Order: sequence, then C-alpha cells, then structure tokens
Amino acid sequence: MSDDAIHSEESIIREFLAPLAAGFSGAFDLQDDCAVLAPEPGSELVVKTDPIIAGVHFLADTDAADIAWKALAVNVSDLAAKGATPVAYLMALALPHAPQRAWMQRLTAGLAEAQREFGCHLIGGDTDRTPGPLTISITAFGTVPAGKMVRRGTARPGDQLFVTGTLGDAALGLQLLKAPSLAKRLLLADAEVAALVQSHVRPQPRLALAPLLRAHARAAMDLSDGLVKDCRRMCAASRVGARLRQRDMPLSSSLERAGTDWHLKALTGGDDYEILAAIPEECVAAFLADADALDFRVTLIGEIAEGAGVTVERPDGTAISFDRAGWDHFA
Amino acid sequence: MSDDAIHSEESIIREFLAPLAAGFSGAFDLQDDCAVLAPEPGSELVVKTDPIIAGVHFLADTDAADIAWKALAVNVSDLAAKGATPVAYLMALALPHAPQRAWMQRLTAGLAEAQREFGCHLIGGDTDRTPGPLTISITAFGTVPAGKMVRRGTARPGDQLFVTGTLGDAALGLQLLKAPSLAKRLLLADAEVAALVQSHVRPQPRLALAPLLRAHARAAMDLSDGLVKDCRRMCAASRVGARLRQRDMPLSSSLERAGTDWHLKALTGGDDYEILAAIPEECVAAFLADADALDFRVTLIGEIAEGAGVTVERPDGTAISFDRAGWDHFA
Repeated sequence: MSDDAIHSEESIIREFLAPLAAGFSGAFDLQDDCAVLAPEPGSELVVKTDPIIAGVHFLADTDAADIAWKALAVNVSDLAAKGATPVAYLMALALPHAPQRAWMQRLTAGLAEAQREFGCHLIGGDTDRTPGPLTISITAFGTVPAGKMVRRGTARPGDQLFVTGTLGDAALGLQLLKAPSLAKRLLLADAEVAALVQSHVRPQPRLALAPLLRAHARAAMDLSDGLVKDCRRMCAASRVGARLRQRDMPLSSSLERAGTDWHLKALTGGDDYEILAAIPEECVAAFLADADALDFRVTLIGEIAEGAGVTVERPDGTAISFDRAGWDHFA
Repeated sequence: MSDDAIHSEESIIREFLAPLAAGFSGAFDLQDDCAVLAPEPGSELVVKTDPIIAGVHFLADTDAADIAWKALAVNVSDLAAKGATPVAYLMALALPHAPQRAWMQRLTAGLAEAQREFGCHLIGGDTDRTPGPLTISITAFGTVPAGKMVRRGTARPGDQLFVTGTLGDAALGLQLLKAPSLAKRLLLADAEVAALVQSHVRPQPRLALAPLLRAHARAAMDLSDGLVKDCRRMCAASRVGARLRQRDMPLSSSLERAGTDWHLKALTGGDDYEILAAIPEECVAAFLADADALDFRVTLIGEIAEGAGVTVERPDGTAISFDRAGWDHFA
C-alpha cells in the first residue's frame, strides 16, 4: 500500500464524494444517514439498481473514470427506456483495498462527467472493504408523469419493433480490448477500434428518446444482455412473440465489414445499451417524425406477433435459431 | 455443483423473488426493468443503501434466512432512526456460484419474515455472478411527512442523549460465534449465548420509535459502527460535542456479568442497530412518557455540549479515551 492510499471512510466521503452531491438539498452533503427525495406533485419515481463488478461487467484494468461512467450509465439507460428523467442516485462502493488518491480522483471525475451529462446528483451511499473484486452498486432514480412509465410487458401483436443506434459495437469493442490483434485481422483502422472500444466502456443512455417513448411507445426496454434475449424477455412479459429481420439490423460500418460472425453477434452480444421499443402501427409515423426532428437514429427491425418466442429471418428467408441467445449470468 | 443448483436468472426471479413483490403494484411482479414509487401527497421518500458482504458483515456459514434478515434490517434500521416508515426495497444479489434451491428457499424465507415484520415489499433488483464473496445490496425506501425526516446534524448543546435497548450484545454475540469456548469462560448459560448470538444475526430495527423521534427528537441516527464512533459523527455533523456517562450505559445482564472489558466494548462494538437520539430538554418528559406508553426501553446516557468530540466519563469521574472508537473499514 503506497502512502497515497486513503484510510478513512470519512475522508473518501468528504473529499471525493460530497462534491458530487452539491446542489441537491435532500443529499444533506452526504452528512446524514439517509437522503430525501420528493417527486413533484403529479409525478412518480422510477427506480433501478444494477451493480457492476470487476471481471464480470468490466475488465479489471479499466480506467476508473470509465468504470464510474459505466456504473451510472447502465442504470440511467434503464430509466431512459422507461421514459423517465434521471434525478439522483445512490452509490455503494465495495473496494478491495484502501483506494489510492489518484484512483478516487479518476473515479469521481468520471462520475462528475456522467452525472452532468445525465442530469442527476449523487445523494447517498456506502463505502466498504471487500475481499472480492471492486463492485459499484448504483441505485438510480428518475421521474415520470404519474402513470406514464413505459412498461416492458405491454407489447401487442402488430406493434412495430424499433431499436436505437447500432448493435454489436460494444461486444466487438470488448473483444478488441481482450485480443487487440483482432483489429488487424478485421482490417479496422485505429479510429474505428477506438470508437468500438468506446461503445463498450462509455455506453450512452438514450435519454433523448425518453419523451418520444412516453408519447408513442406501447412497450420498451434497454438492451443489456443482447437483442434476442432481451426481446424474448419483452415477449414473455407481454405474452406475445416477435419476428425480427436480420437484414434490417442497424450495424456500424466497422461491424458491417467485420464479417458474418459479427453480424450474428450483433443479435446476441451484450452491453449495447440501445433501446428496443414496440410502437403501435398507428403511432409509427409520428414516432419517426419526432425522432427525425431530433436527428435521432431509430431503425425498424421487425414486429410483435401472436404466439411466443423470437424468430430472426435471415436475408435468404430462412429462420435462425440460437443456442445461447444473449448473456445469462447463471447459464 | 449439485443437480439442485438453479442456473437461470429468470428462474430465480420467477420462483423465488417474485412472491416477495406480490401486492405492490409498482413492482410489476418483477417482470419489468424498473419499479415505480409514488409517495402519498404531502410525504417524501427517505432512501438508504447499505450492502452486506460475506466475511465482512456476517460469517460466511450463516444461515441464509439470517443473512437475508440482516441485509434488510440494517437498512430499515436507518429508516427507523430517521423517523421514516418502510415501504419497499430493491435487492441486488451477487452470488459466488449458481445458488442451491434449498439456499434460495432459506434466503427468501428470511426476506419474507423480515419484510412482513418491517412492513415493506421487494420491488426490484438484480442478480449477478461474482468471483468474490456473497454480497447483498439492499436499497430501502421509507416515507415521512414532508420535511419531517429526523436529521443527524441538528443536535444542539443541552440536548439529552438517549439510546434504545442495550449496547454491546451484538459484538459479544459475534465473538461467541467465532470462539464458542468464550461462553464457558464468561459463565454464560445456553439461553444467554443464544440471545447474544441472536442480537448479532437478527438485529431489530427500532421502528416503534420512529413516530416518537419525529415528535420529540432534534437529531437521531442508528448505531452500526459503535456508540462512540457514531456519536462522534452526530457531533461532527452538528458541530457540537458530547459527554457520555459510562455508568448509565444500558447493558444486558449477560454483558454486565461478562466483565470490564465487555463494558468498555459496549461503547465501541459495532452492529448494535439501536438508535441514538438527541432530545431537547423541554421534550424529554413527553418523550419518556410516550416511550413508556409503548413499553419501549430508552436510556439517558449523556448530553450534547459545546465544543467538539465525545468524552466518556468513567464511574470514578475520570475520562476515557479510545484508540479506536468503533469500526472503520479503511483504518
């Protein structure tokens, strides 16, 4: 342990975390045991917790600013998919050793950047030592007008399925971090590699879409475990099926050129943090017009159908089946 | 891995966790990505997150029902100290391996018992595999009438300091679990050992006190890291000092008989989950009358003073100083 490690929980809070709470009265400068949240009359709180663990959700040598960004972004991504506006978050840090001052500075710089970008404040939390890997457990709070949270389990046959952005970039970015020689094999330029890696380490919650989802979507969810698996979840919760068309999947030019294997992985790779939305047919035109006005990329990839399960139609018209459709922590 | 392990996150949710969400509409049967909370008009949400980690906050071989109870109780204890009424919680489980069915049954039995006792529901969460130890991260939500959360940093010189229950039993209970032979040395009967161990594994949040704190307390907090350390935190946040009297500490008869070392440890041992409350002098009589009407044990142990820091007066009138006043995860 170097001399630059911080050995007091109170120093961590006072020097590094309290500045992230400045300006939010219910955070009490992190000097109380709890925080207070008071949603505006007529609005409700949408809540989500999704921890990230070193070696599971990010590589252990990731820059602390990127870890921090991701810890907050994966939670805010869920809020965006529900049509909610982020307001605040709690953070429980489990640290394998007393943190270095420079590491805490990077961590809080990443949090400061993310919370500025997403429009929310740290309002409380906890700091522990753990004999295990670094774990950051964030609970995020957003608000929606009462009754307006966009649900997962309300899709209906005939609804048109849209996704934001492009798929598979984060999965390829992770692979490039693990095996840098892959860049050469796939003939990727340095800038392309950088952009793909960025997709993995700095997911962008699609907050601009939240009001459009409230206005037009029948159901929505964010994609964290791979399109096919997450779409199955929407279908199971809605008691419907879905038909997706592989030729319509939005792929970045890098992924396009990476070849057939990667085109398939775009269907199952995790960590996209794009949004899957079921839009009733009669709302599609308005949804597209609003997205266009925001210059926001959304792509029609299929539709909700009677029945159960997800089928993906190949460009040649045959159906694809998957052995392992997305990520399951226990499979 | 035995055949009785559960390998699907969706089975864990559907079979074991969803029943804990029954009856809370904003939990959507745990079939959505987020939950919704809508505090009554005129009330605010009080929020807290405090994870527990195997080997840090509980012994690894603890019965899963007791682990579950403690995971929820340590959070609800904070709500009680703030004058809040529990309503709901999120739970992120980080499991070192696919859980056994019997273990999940014990875990959810403990949660069911705790949430029935505390009056709240599971409304969401997350389940992950971790290369580290079992970690349960609960975020608890309570409500208070708007503006009525009892603060930590508002104590004033002259306020009388009360604690609930007795101190040090949980610390002695933990020691008895680690070194069972201690029971003989301290001449403890089996029933006494069982009660002390119970204090450690099944802390009782002092929810009955919440309305009394709202009515009478100037400041309050729960005791998780030891009386002296937590009292220092109240003093630091309030920019005051405190004088405690050792002879007035409420001790169980077991701890009383365990000797001088344990009388001192009652001042610094962690995991009490009792409440420390600063009551203005003019409110003391009403506070005591209300506590008496509930048959709720509260004990006057000292007072808030001008200055800074906490001094403890020995029975002989000299002051005690502590090398290590309570638990710090990074010291």
